[in-house]
Amino acid sequence: MRVLGIDPGSRHCGFGVVESQAGRLRHVAHGVLSLRKGGIEDRLLELHQGLCHVIALHRPQAVAVEDVFSKHARSALVLGQARGVALLAAAQAKLEVRAFPPAAIKQLVTGSGRAEKEQVGKMVSMLLGVSIEERVDASDALAAAICGVLRAKAVPLLRVRRR
Amino acid sequence: MRVLGIDPGSRHCGFGVVESQAGRLRHVAHGVLSLRKGGIEDRLLELHQGLCHVIALHRPQAVAVEDVFSKHARSALVLGQARGVALLAAAQAKLEVRAFPPAAIKQLVTGSGRAEKEQVGKMVSMLLGVSIEERVDASDALAAAICGVLRAKAVPLLRVRRR
Repeated sequence: MRVLGIDPGSRHCGFGVVESQAGRLRHVAHGVLSLRKGGIEDRLLELHQGLCHVIALHRPQAVAVEDVFSKHARSALVLGQARGVALLAAAQAKLEVRAFPPAAIKQLVTGSGRAEKEQVGKMVSMLLGVSIEERVDASDALAAAICGVLRAKAVPLLRVRRR
Repeated sequence: MRVLGIDPGSRHCGFGVVESQAGRLRHVAHGVLSLRKGGIEDRLLELHQGLCHVIALHRPQAVAVEDVFSKHARSALVLGQARGVALLAAAQAKLEVRAFPPAAIKQLVTGSGRAEKEQVGKMVSMLLGVSIEERVDASDALAAAICGVLRAKAVPLLRVRRR
């Protein structure tokens, strides 16, 4: 099972591809799509093209995203626009979408639902055996992808954390 | 100038096409895309296909949308997802996007920035000489389209209201 995790944003969108191979997590790719300045519609177009390219290149079987909750309506709207485009790209490629609450992703990856972003990044690096130089959006996307892979296979948490 | 107004929603999306012809507003088309029940990604896919179809059919030169503000973060996120897909469809067709604050649309169409939706619907019917049997989303979309046409041509408000 190969899963593309997406951390959508209107300026930067993190992505990470993770698969399970012989019962182990394997890192496939990760990165950040940084969108040019311009009208929001131009940035959404660039985001869509970028995600379609990532999907065509890495051929995931599912997409994992955070179930976002923003307290601020304005930022929720802006975030929603990018998220809508990401979900559309998934649906166009006929990929199943798995959404996870942020706390569930943190819990699975670090053992604590309240972990800080840095801690999530460190654990993602350790679990996948890669260093992540990019913005935190990339490790957030990889964390979602890990969650997408493990939840699909129902691998118990301990087995993951021991790696 | 032919403008497609869009009132995006995650369940129903209103659209309306209006053009200026010999200095007069002319109704081209309007309707509501009602999205099937299903996962949000499936509805966004259907919304995108529907809007691309409307754009291909009516060949507008610009798209007009409301600048939405929701007080509730959750509904802003859901609305944002549909809006993102609508803006993407516009950008893919290389259409200029014009966004107007709700009060500006109401002001232009009814003369009052605080007009009720029903009042907007009645004035849209009168201005375009059509009866609108569809959901209010359709008349909201036509109102945005009218705004998109008139603001582009800088037709003064009084000239519009006299029609």
